[in-house]
Amino acid sequence: MTNSPSHITRWDEPIHARALARLDILTKPVGALGRLEPLAAQLCAIQSTLAPQITKPAALVFAGDHGAADRGVSAYPKAVTAQMVANFLSGGAAISVFSRLHGLSLQVIDAGVDAPLAPHPQLIAAKVRSGTRDYGVEPALTADEVGHAFRLAAEIIQRTVAAGSNTLVLGEMGIGNTASSALLMHGLTGRPLADCVGRGTGLDDAGVARKLALLEQARARAPHVANARQLLQEFGGCEIAMLTGAILAAAAQRCVVVIDGFTVTVAAALAFQITPEARDFCVFAHRSAEQAHRALLAFIGVDPLLDLGMRLGEGTGAALAIPLLRAAASMITDMATFESAGVSGKEER
Amino acid sequence: MTNSPSHITRWDEPIHARALARLDILTKPVGALGRLEPLAAQLCAIQSTLAPQITKPAALVFAGDHGAADRGVSAYPKAVTAQMVANFLSGGAAISVFSRLHGLSLQVIDAGVDAPLAPHPQLIAAKVRSGTRDYGVEPALTADEVGHAFRLAAEIIQRTVAAGSNTLVLGEMGIGNTASSALLMHGLTGRPLADCVGRGTGLDDAGVARKLALLEQARARAPHVANARQLLQEFGGCEIAMLTGAILAAAAQRCVVVIDGFTVTVAAALAFQITPEARDFCVFAHRSAEQAHRALLAFIGVDPLLDLGMRLGEGTGAALAIPLLRAAASMITDMATFESAGVSGKEER
Repeated sequence: MTNSPSHITRWDEPIHARALARLDILTKPVGALGRLEPLAAQLCAIQSTLAPQITKPAALVFAGDHGAADRGVSAYPKAVTAQMVANFLSGGAAISVFSRLHGLSLQVIDAGVDAPLAPHPQLIAAKVRSGTRDYGVEPALTADEVGHAFRLAAEIIQRTVAAGSNTLVLGEMGIGNTASSALLMHGLTGRPLADCVGRGTGLDDAGVARKLALLEQARARAPHVANARQLLQEFGGCEIAMLTGAILAAAAQRCVVVIDGFTVTVAAALAFQITPEARDFCVFAHRSAEQAHRALLAFIGVDPLLDLGMRLGEGTGAALAIPLLRAAASMITDMATFESAGVSGKEER
Repeated sequence: MTNSPSHITRWDEPIHARALARLDILTKPVGALGRLEPLAAQLCAIQSTLAPQITKPAALVFAGDHGAADRGVSAYPKAVTAQMVANFLSGGAAISVFSRLHGLSLQVIDAGVDAPLAPHPQLIAAKVRSGTRDYGVEPALTADEVGHAFRLAAEIIQRTVAAGSNTLVLGEMGIGNTASSALLMHGLTGRPLADCVGRGTGLDDAGVARKLALLEQARARAPHVANARQLLQEFGGCEIAMLTGAILAAAAQRCVVVIDGFTVTVAAALAFQITPEARDFCVFAHRSAEQAHRALLAFIGVDPLLDLGMRLGEGTGAALAIPLLRAAASMITDMATFESAGVSGKEER
């Protein structure tokens, strides 16, 4: 079932109901595979089949720089964004290692790294601009730039799906992007900014306090914006705008979209504000150690699969969830039923 | 490093320290891979290398029947033990599906199924006896039977290791074995019996109350036994005794031992009472939905990797953790360092 690139329909409800019924006749007590069971039913409903498959899963890591990063919102210098992109491509980063291990094709998207990047077969050049403007003094992106980010992302998703992928692991890299994410979460949810701010990749207490003060000042510039696209203009990152567009495009293409940590979850929440039906297609992979991520997951009302205390980004949490998706798909596809296996059912006493 | 079959030494402490130091120079913020980091260091310390590997992982599922099972401690009839063994072997059970998916060789051990089982290439005939005696009226096993179970298990582990496996997924099948496990946990930990009893594979409230009453009656027969071997004699199962022996033998062989749900965790706790050093070699895979499992994990002081609300047994939770072990091993083996990748470190501000 393929739809127009921008239209998202709900998952296949009749298949979802049939999948839930089938789970109850497989050779296990009802519900005994826990969280894998609703996950299996979701995969069935997304793919409109009782025998879902994870086919050519692709990891797409969107990278971008932030004009505000020089203000000390991160423990790492801005140059690390481009350096880590090089590390992704040379195979030494965590997402590179996990992608190889789990058979994910890895593509890195230059959504807006503030440095020229040498061509590479796994690098998609899609710079919206070379780093965002400093949201402390002006909007980070224009409306046109946000629209352009959405269109570029949709093109990448369409190419990935055309190449045979039905499952997408979404990740990000951008020094300073948890600060941008905090502003976006605050605008979207109305939660106090302090609840939306975390340590990023390694700030100490003084660093967190400094980050919060900077973000409060930035928010004061546009205190009432709550609309997803406008929030992306005011406070967004190129990679976050592209992630938002990618989630919408992937849902329109009926892909399984595996959501990583805080920044990707912010993009998902932005996407759901634009088109709530996108949520049917998202699997929330992990709960990161970032307190803001926990609060945002609670706001969305989801309980991710993994809780390993990770806080790296890059799509690493989403990549680690892929074997659980495969397990859920195999379980409903390949397990015997009580009847087919000749196993006695529960006794009534 | 190979030891005598019965002697367990601690893990390699110098390598453990070096592994922890190496984790801090990989291209990620310190600690950002959360629980995978101590797991990677544990694998290094077990294997005495900074480049650990999960080699030919084997799933060993120990099956046995319980004389007390006819008393209504399970929602399923006793015949299901043998029926499920047949289902494991024909490939339709959850552990069969997950073993294929994750490349585990699956062996089922007839530790004491109360039915003749047809030979099968994946079935190891090692019946300690055809079902235990009813612990409601007499000891379930003799001292000789427990000793025999340990020896049989050690032989199986030695053969598995000799065939090249360095990682073992341990599982179980036995209608009524969560009841036996409850008595063992109670004897071992001193926790109230009510805290050690769960729903097993699907009892309702009345069923749980009936199970508890039966177990209180059984415990009254031997109220002061707290020693692991004696507990196995009084209340054990053939499969639980073999699991206990298997954990000790696997630790002596310096295998990575992946511990599944409630019953296997009880066997682990029994093994640790006998030889505390065995704990170094165990990875606790998942927290099951069984409340008694949660209490036992807290007693042991471990926090498992997965928490998916599963309560199936068979080794399914342990099998699902294998990709996380592989990820931890790959991470420390294959990730670049900040220096090798030319990535800038954290800034001092």
